[in-house]
Parts: sequence; structure tokens; C-alpha cells
Amino acid sequence: MSILLKHAKILLRDENDYEVLEDAYLGVEGRYIDHIGTEKPVKRYDEEKDYTDKLLMPGLIDAHSHIPMVFLRGIADGLPLDKWLNERVFPIEAKLTAEQIRVSSYYAILELLASGVTSFTDMYFFPEETAQAIKDSGIKANLNKYILCFDPNQTIEESMIGPSIEFFDKYNDTCDGRLKVDFSIHAEYTNQPHIVNAYSEECKKHDAIMHIHLSESRSEVEKCIEKYKQTPVEWFESLGTFENPTCAAHVVWPMKDDLKILKKHDVSVMHNPSSNLMIGSGFAPVREMLDLGINVGLGTDGTASNNNLNMLEEMHLAAIVHNGYHLDATNIKSSQVIDMATRNGAKLQGRSDTGSLEVGKCADIIALDLNKIHLYPVFEYPSILTKSAQGSDVCMTMVDGKILYENGQYLTLDKEKIVQDFKTAVKDFYG
Amino acid sequence: MSILLKHAKILLRDENDYEVLEDAYLGVEGRYIDHIGTEKPVKRYDEEKDYTDKLLMPGLIDAHSHIPMVFLRGIADGLPLDKWLNERVFPIEAKLTAEQIRVSSYYAILELLASGVTSFTDMYFFPEETAQAIKDSGIKANLNKYILCFDPNQTIEESMIGPSIEFFDKYNDTCDGRLKVDFSIHAEYTNQPHIVNAYSEECKKHDAIMHIHLSESRSEVEKCIEKYKQTPVEWFESLGTFENPTCAAHVVWPMKDDLKILKKHDVSVMHNPSSNLMIGSGFAPVREMLDLGINVGLGTDGTASNNNLNMLEEMHLAAIVHNGYHLDATNIKSSQVIDMATRNGAKLQGRSDTGSLEVGKCADIIALDLNKIHLYPVFEYPSILTKSAQGSDVCMTMVDGKILYENGQYLTLDKEKIVQDFKTAVKDFYG
Repeated sequence: MSILLKHAKILLRDENDYEVLEDAYLGVEGRYIDHIGTEKPVKRYDEEKDYTDKLLMPGLIDAHSHIPMVFLRGIADGLPLDKWLNERVFPIEAKLTAEQIRVSSYYAILELLASGVTSFTDMYFFPEETAQAIKDSGIKANLNKYILCFDPNQTIEESMIGPSIEFFDKYNDTCDGRLKVDFSIHAEYTNQPHIVNAYSEECKKHDAIMHIHLSESRSEVEKCIEKYKQTPVEWFESLGTFENPTCAAHVVWPMKDDLKILKKHDVSVMHNPSSNLMIGSGFAPVREMLDLGINVGLGTDGTASNNNLNMLEEMHLAAIVHNGYHLDATNIKSSQVIDMATRNGAKLQGRSDTGSLEVGKCADIIALDLNKIHLYPVFEYPSILTKSAQGSDVCMTMVDGKILYENGQYLTLDKEKIVQDFKTAVKDFYG
Repeated sequence: MSILLKHAKILLRDENDYEVLEDAYLGVEGRYIDHIGTEKPVKRYDEEKDYTDKLLMPGLIDAHSHIPMVFLRGIADGLPLDKWLNERVFPIEAKLTAEQIRVSSYYAILELLASGVTSFTDMYFFPEETAQAIKDSGIKANLNKYILCFDPNQTIEESMIGPSIEFFDKYNDTCDGRLKVDFSIHAEYTNQPHIVNAYSEECKKHDAIMHIHLSESRSEVEKCIEKYKQTPVEWFESLGTFENPTCAAHVVWPMKDDLKILKKHDVSVMHNPSSNLMIGSGFAPVREMLDLGINVGLGTDGTASNNNLNMLEEMHLAAIVHNGYHLDATNIKSSQVIDMATRNGAKLQGRSDTGSLEVGKCADIIALDLNKIHLYPVFEYPSILTKSAQGSDVCMTMVDGKILYENGQYLTLDKEKIVQDFKTAVKDFYG
């Protein structure tokens, strides 16, 4: 199957910045982009589509989420973090079954595809259910079965390491590579050192990526220092976790030399502005990270601390809130935010074959309908994409050369049934 | 003309919080709401419309903007404030003609109506052009012809006071009260004390509202203290400005007793989170203002520092950024944000007959289409409205009982022509 998108505006990136090719052609052969240019290719494509007044850009990568939490969307609004977690989120999560995670996964993918997400990195329980939704939908994802251990006397055999590796062995690099499996440690404060150490070694043996929560709140960091005389960053480093390609969510409160440690080990950070703001975690030092050369991706986090899965919204926040915090309109550049939402996310997912529009790369592409009142005039596309565009401006989402979403329609998923099943499950659960 | 909206969810506010009436009826007779309840009224309406799965709420009030700046949308992205203003915005504004303001005003109103704005307070030049667009579109607005004076020797006669009052006399309380005219002083740093003093007295004589920019950036406040040994708040107070019902935009940097002074004079504040963040002004102490009992509205500011006119986006920001800044998930309540975007805005516009859905109030109503993936489940409407909803979820905008926008269609404006005229003007100007 091949397809040619004609008369499009195409967002390209050279070494320094983004530029837009006007009235251009993008050809897709099978899973890959095989042509980008202002000349119409000589080759015949199976299908040709007119993309006048549409902007093609790399698919967005939601670098850190808990997508089945759509089942808990906005459930703990206006609560402080400890009550949010302990009184609302945890008690509900303790009751969730595989079936609820299944319907929630499909439902969340409807939301992701409609707002231009082509790949996401997730951390939640019953990942086998989410895996099935990935298979059926055609989206890409990095999943994991994360480890959690509150008992200091738990043995390696009793730990969740076994099931985590089992999940890795069964699902990694399936669905034609669309589904990858990472290793994952929930967080320092939900784990024991000996388990983390053993698991980190296993990760190395399996040549896998490690996904963790890191230094999200000030109290998390303070308690860790009190308990271990180490920051969470130092703690993970000392346990060998960072000897794996690691991606760390949040990192709002790095202390002392923490960022240098992350840079030394090439740890990627997943920035989650909505969540960090809504539940009062604070402002991650994103500019400092970027200046140090740390790879920073962008994620929505779960919908109990957001309350949606809208990456355009995260881009908007990332593009403006740090400017306000540092009283500096130049703190974060629009182009850096687009990097975070695309190529940086691809890198931390271990997907070198996507994240930008280039011949030879996977055709993970979205289109934005520029025929919107709020998208004119355009002086610089990165500015408009981060500060004017909306999730609802996405009119096409393509993964591996296959259109999954187009003008409100889903081509691989039965929206009506998914919505119905989800609503039924929500009503059954909450009454 | 009368209309009955049936089977709607209706967002009501009692003294303490918002609640939603399910499967309810809202009747409109002429300009006013004449029925709200779960019982179908006995009275026959000219038209009945089914609003199943739609939420009716008060129209949003954009309490501070410069709407013709859509002509400069995103033009100075990533520049520090002084360069933003002096090198990009001011040189372009110096060249703008009445014709460009005219086409820009109509164009901006398309954007406002589509995202649920029923009334706005504006400050820009050639307000006569914007007035015409208000007349034709059916939207409500408070305009002004603001004063500006850089010459300390300017006399009252030479000043802009005359033209400002002339504009007031000609346009105030026209278009059946939809168009109101305020007095307006651009800012402390763009004016002279003797002019401000004389103008403030005129405002009092005319029983008008005063609209000003106030303490937006730290340097503005520091320079004022250096020059006058007064904060901008103290300066305006000493010149008699606050003896009028005053609404002040931004107020990011109140010092010492400034907030108490504002409270003492019942000055309203217009909060502009997008703008304050994007151009690095900082975080207005909104919680402190609300705790003091100051009336705080919400506004988009102009699209050169935003870059759109999307009040749902401002609501989202207002609902989360202060939580992040103060490391407190309870800093700003979702319901407070809805107040800011509706009733508080109505109050500062001097419109006691709108801002909430109540029998007897003006039928300034918007509907949100709840049949969206990202708007389910709903545990609390204020949470979903501030943290999940998008401008594009607005499916109907009614002002004074007249539907102006419905499902992408404009009922009073010729969208095609307005867009075409605007694009032609932009191309002619920028080349």
C-alpha cells in the first residue's frame, strides 16, 4: 500500500530549527516515508490525497502516561497530593479489574489518536489489556509491568521482577515493532533497594529501557534524603538503575548535582506540565536540563492529574509556564517544545526510526487543519503550533503508513462500541 | 421570539458552589431567560431545541483584550518584553489603519463566538471600527478610547481626554445596551499625572467605568517607584482614578499594601494567565486577591502575547498554574475559575443583568457538547470545565436570546467574506 499526500505544508527540521516546505508532496510506501519534496514524484502511488491548507508534522509522542486512568478522569480535583493519592486514587485502583483496564485502554486510545498521538509510553497495571488495544488500534507504545515493593524483607523470588520479565519476554517487539516493552520501577518511595538493584541488573541483561518516576514532589525528595542520606537520583544511581537507558518522569525537584548525574548517565526526562501544576508539584527546571544536553520528552501523565490526554495542551504549557516562572520570555523556545513532543520522545522510547519527517523514517505523521480562525496569520509555525493550535485541529493521524484517524473517524477501532463499553463499565463501577 | 432548550444539563450556582440540573428546560423570551427547571413549562415557545448531552452555562466574558491584535498573532514569539513591544508590536501598530482594525475586529469576533465568548472588554485604537463589528455581530463589549501621553507639558485641551469623552458620548449604551463604553488610561508608564488626574475626574462626572493596565511587569513597578516614590497602585490612587469603578488588567506585581488599596476602592482585577506566562511577566497573586474579596475576572489579552482568544484555555491555566506556583493543589478552586470567567467578568463590565443562568437575567448562554471522548466521565463539572474542556467543545453561543454561533455556523456574520477580507488585508500589509 502506498499513498501520496499532495499540496501539503510539511514541517521539517534542519540542525538548527524548523522550517515549512510549502505546497509539497509526501509519499508513503508501506510503513515508511519514501518522498518529501516540492516536486511531484514520478512514481505512481496507490492513492493520492489532497492536503491543501493542511500541515504535516511528526506524530506526537506522549512520553509518560497512565492511559487507563481515563476511568478516574478528574476524580480527585482540588485535593492535596497525599489525599489525592491515598484517599481517592489508590482505593479506586485497588478495585479495578482487568476488564476495566481493557475498556479504558481502548477508550484512551480514541482520545490519543484524535489529538495526534502516534506513540505513548505507559505505566499501569494489567498492561496485557493495554497491549491488546495497541495491537488492535495500530498505535505505537512502550508498556511495562512495573515493580513495586513495600516489604523490606521481600525476596527476589517473591518480588514482581519475575512477572515483569515475563511480560517483557512475551510482548517486547511485537505488533511489527509497534509494541515495545520497557522495564519499570514505580518510584524510590514505593520500592526496596535490594529489589531495585537486582531488577536493574536484569534490565541490563535484557538490553531494555528503564522507566521510572523520579523526584516528582519536594516531600518525596526530602523523605528520601532523610531515609537514605541520598536524593532519589543518587539512590537510583547507587543501585545501578542508570546503567540502563533510563527515562524518568517529572524530575521537578533535582537537588545538588542531580541533573549532572542524569546527564552523565544519559537519562531522559519526561516533562509533565499539566500534572506538575494541577497537583502542586512545581516547575521542573526544563531549561537547565536542555542546556545540560539532557533529552527531555513531554507527557500527559494520567487523567486524574491532568484531566485529559491532549499533547497540544502539554505543548502549550511547556512553551509558556517556564517563561512565567523565570520571568523570561526566552526561557523555552517553541521549537524546543516541538522537539520534546516528537523527536525527544522517540529517542527515549528507543525508536530511532521515527520522531521526524524524513525519507526512510516510519510514516508516523499527523495533519493539522490550518483552515481555522485561530491559526491565521502564521508568522512562525513553531509559535502557532505551541501557542495557538488545539488538539481538535488534528485532522489525520497516521502510524506506520496507516491512517488510524481522519476527520473524526477511526479506521481501525469501533468508536461506538468502545464508548458504549466504557460508559457501561464506569456506570457499573461507580453506580 | 422565544425559544425552549430541552433536556439540557444546566450549570447553576448557589451561594456556595456550582451544581448541574439534569434533563432540564431553559426558556428564553426575547432577550431574557424566563424559565429554568426540570419541569417542561406550560407556556408555548416559538421554537424548541433538543439539548440532550449538552451543558448550558453562562457565556464566557473575556475581561481584558485587544482583539484587533489578531492582525499581529504570534508576531513576536520568543522575544523579551521590551523587544516584543518596541521592536515588533509598536512599529507595526504605528502603521495600522482604521481599515485593518475593521477587518481584524470582525475576524476576532468569529474566534470569540466560536469559543463561547458572549462579552469582552477591549482596549485598542480605532474603537469605532470595533464598535461597528459589535453592532453587526450581536456580541456584547465594553470598549473605550484610551488616553496616552508621553509629553509632560501636554495640556488638557491637547490631550486625548476630549476624543475619549466624545467616543463615550457617541457609543455608550448603544446597540440595545450591548455596547458600553468605559474610560481608559493605558498605563502609568504611558501617561502624565495631570492628565490622569483630570481624566479621572471626568470619568466620575460621566459615571463611567475606568479600565487600566496596572503593575504588569516588575520593571514597570520598579521604574514607577523610582520616578514617583509610589507604586503604580499608589500613583493611580493619589490621582483619584480609583474613585471610579475601576478594572485593572494584570496586577502581577502588587507591592506592600497595594492589594488592600485595590480592595478598599473595590477595584476589579483582570487576570491574564497566558500573556503573563508567555512574555515572562510572572504570576499574579490571584488567591490572595480572592481571599481579600477582590473581584477577579479573566481575559485573553491580545493575540501577540497569547496567541489566541480562547477563554477555555485561560480557564485551564488559571485553574492549574497557581497550584504549581504555590505548591498547593488547593490554591485555586475550579469553581472560582468559572466565577472569574463569567459572573466576575460581568460585574467588572458593569453588567449586573448577566454572568449567570437565572430567570430574569439576559440569555447570554453557551452550550458545550458533552459527547466528546475527553469529557467523560464527569465526577464534578467545574473540574471537567476547567481541566478537560476545549474551546472547540462549544457548540452554541447565544447573546441576548439570539443564537450567534451554532455548530460551526455564524448566524449574524458572513464568515467567508470576513476571512477573505482579513487575509487580503494581512497579505497587503505584510507582503
